[in-house]
Amino acid sequence: MSIITIQRKVLEKNDEIARRNRTLFEQHGILALNLVSSPGAGKTSIVERTLERLGNDLHIGVVEGDVQTDFDAQRVARYQVPVIQIVTNGGCHLEARLVQEALSQMDLRGLDVLIIENVGNLVCPANYDLGEAMKVVVLSTTEGDDKPLKYPNMFRNASVLVINKIDLIPYLDCNLATLKSNALRINPHLEVFETSCTTNAGIADWCGWLKEKGTRRS
Amino acid sequence: MSIITIQRKVLEKNDEIARRNRTLFEQHGILALNLVSSPGAGKTSIVERTLERLGNDLHIGVVEGDVQTDFDAQRVARYQVPVIQIVTNGGCHLEARLVQEALSQMDLRGLDVLIIENVGNLVCPANYDLGEAMKVVVLSTTEGDDKPLKYPNMFRNASVLVINKIDLIPYLDCNLATLKSNALRINPHLEVFETSCTTNAGIADWCGWLKEKGTRRS
Repeated sequence: MSIITIQRKVLEKNDEIARRNRTLFEQHGILALNLVSSPGAGKTSIVERTLERLGNDLHIGVVEGDVQTDFDAQRVARYQVPVIQIVTNGGCHLEARLVQEALSQMDLRGLDVLIIENVGNLVCPANYDLGEAMKVVVLSTTEGDDKPLKYPNMFRNASVLVINKIDLIPYLDCNLATLKSNALRINPHLEVFETSCTTNAGIADWCGWLKEKGTRRS
Repeated sequence: MSIITIQRKVLEKNDEIARRNRTLFEQHGILALNLVSSPGAGKTSIVERTLERLGNDLHIGVVEGDVQTDFDAQRVARYQVPVIQIVTNGGCHLEARLVQEALSQMDLRGLDVLIIENVGNLVCPANYDLGEAMKVVVLSTTEGDDKPLKYPNMFRNASVLVINKIDLIPYLDCNLATLKSNALRINPHLEVFETSCTTNAGIADWCGWLKEKGTRRS
């Protein structure tokens, strides 16, 4: 109970900085996505497949959040896009303040989309607004079809669900229909994609949607 | 940075209660394990296989920690063991205080082993002592072989690593030797088991070790 009280205080400050980040994104016409999942669900692989496919159509920047290491930033930097690594040194989620610092080191002019890859954690990142337009939650089929019910805040606060590693379903006790129905029970407005970064299944659908959302109207 | 400061204050209180829990376990001769992992790595399945195999040899109690739902407690209760469910209501880890409350509702007399199944999260639970004798970290092969390097605190603070879902390795880009060497780089003292709750591979080894550790000497 003490922790909940303390988090509330932190969240007030966080939300104020998140509002400033959001204003900055709007001024630059940038669609900012907060990409969240458990560890190893495939967030970085989704980013890589997205950069491969949309690199010529959209200007995409990436902010990588990790507890330790810059492995993910190194993977993403191979695609010649602007990337900033945030190392939280044990912190279990990104905060708006850390993203604000990252933004101060990135040239935002001309960017269409900013992908903020959060720390691998299905719990805490659900509560921290970074100023994004929407949260995209990646769930691996290997985690089991009950996860939307067990971590409901994340699915409630997300706009998009990417069900990843669908190529592994034949080997798993995971029912895709049950997984989707559990997710939509928590949040009927979720946009759902089914992907495999190994076979590339569903990547075109996801990228088509992102291209449509991320293209400037002005 | 603000979060780290705040966590320190919480941790002082937590560690004091953890010490009281530890004293209680020692008084009752109970081996307490703090079972940690990402969501869906198979903690509850490991508990189920353990209860199946050791139910006649050891008196085992279970404390289930979840953000929402009592699905895991329901699964475990089928094995006719004492089980208490803690629902953290959005909290991303168990704290010593919550375990203290659970212990007050459980008859500890005659118990050999208490398995405390933490919330699915590779980050925060690493920092919260519950009074356990040791942390057991479960890592699924599907999460990738780089995870010990990316979430080092958990592997540094654990005594045992259970590498689960080894039956899926043929379908994954996960090298078991690399995974183990990454884990042992972070913590050379880790006791490592390789298991599959689908094929039961390695379950006998893990249970043999637990039986040896959990059997009373007095």
